[in-house]
Amino acid sequence: MNETALFKLSYGVYICTSWDEGKPVGCVANSAMQITSSPATVAVSINKNNYTHKCIEDCGHFALTVLAEDSDPKLIGTFGFRTSKEYDKFASAPYTVRGKLPVLDGGMAYLSCKVVSKMETATHTVFLGEVEDCDHLRAGKPMTYAYYHDVLKGKTSANAPTTVAAAPEKKQKVYVCEICGYEFTGDFDSLPGDWVCPICGVGKEHFSAK
Amino acid sequence: MNETALFKLSYGVYICTSWDEGKPVGCVANSAMQITSSPATVAVSINKNNYTHKCIEDCGHFALTVLAEDSDPKLIGTFGFRTSKEYDKFASAPYTVRGKLPVLDGGMAYLSCKVVSKMETATHTVFLGEVEDCDHLRAGKPMTYAYYHDVLKGKTSANAPTTVAAAPEKKQKVYVCEICGYEFTGDFDSLPGDWVCPICGVGKEHFSAK
Repeated sequence: MNETALFKLSYGVYICTSWDEGKPVGCVANSAMQITSSPATVAVSINKNNYTHKCIEDCGHFALTVLAEDSDPKLIGTFGFRTSKEYDKFASAPYTVRGKLPVLDGGMAYLSCKVVSKMETATHTVFLGEVEDCDHLRAGKPMTYAYYHDVLKGKTSANAPTTVAAAPEKKQKVYVCEICGYEFTGDFDSLPGDWVCPICGVGKEHFSAK
Repeated sequence: MNETALFKLSYGVYICTSWDEGKPVGCVANSAMQITSSPATVAVSINKNNYTHKCIEDCGHFALTVLAEDSDPKLIGTFGFRTSKEYDKFASAPYTVRGKLPVLDGGMAYLSCKVVSKMETATHTVFLGEVEDCDHLRAGKPMTYAYYHDVLKGKTSANAPTTVAAAPEKKQKVYVCEICGYEFTGDFDSLPGDWVCPICGVGKEHFSAK
């Protein structure tokens, strides 16, 4: 048994949102799929340790914002590597209430759902949601997890301050973001003080040498 | 509510297989996703009208063969547009028993699963399977549904007998496969008698002018 075969399943990249007593909450979700067409239902798998899980349980609704390939990758950092319990993810991520739920303005489509069933597993709940509202926000190509992993990380890395990184007289060290795992290669000390992680947006103080 | 927003969810393309009293059965599945990592479980959604659904219910096991971008598109036609009840899909699709289940040789990876839970909906059952065996079959890029829909159909169409289709003196008519919906553009009558649909493999008798 070679569990890396599981990496060959294909996924999109979504922000799954809900309400926490009137405040928007959300997290990144990859595991989402349509189940039935009439009525339209979608299933999403959310880790029970995730604060958004509790909020979906409490309010009985969730929305999926579909990210596009050109959506700001900071959305993934903000919603994927922090907790809504301690951090206001929406402070840097504009949203609009659509179909009663918070939808990220940076997405390309959304589905707003009412929980109609669920399946429990040891670590995750698979929520089945009946789609109450959905629409496109703009044109775009849906971001796949493979694109995020294989292409976007590469692109982001290439867009990092390479003029500094490429300075021949400096040794190329690697600095790792403790929040999202992004690796910066180059002269970290020469980066400006307000430089932030291109993936999750945290400051230099969250990086440490590898 | 614009239900075409649902088209923006991302999927892979899999052949979901099982046993029917010792005979292999299978169908195309797009809706599959990993749910937990320890133990590894995956969920797959199968239409209740599908003969493979009955077989998974009866034998309690299913396998997913992950198709690659360069897997033979006829696999999708054979497994997606016919029924295992009346047609031996495996007659033209070599398979090997791996982890106790039939796995298509034309795939790039497989997951062999034991059903441990399920969630019922009006038209589909979401089977939760604990992965008992999985491995890669070969290198490749997993086929996504978007690739099948947007790219492969184009490529297949381009590989159709275009020398005939492009003959300037003939009017370009469109002929539609009644099995899978593939559209052939060109001089249909001049195709050889043993020509078959490049997607699902049926003969010319299953085509009609659009």
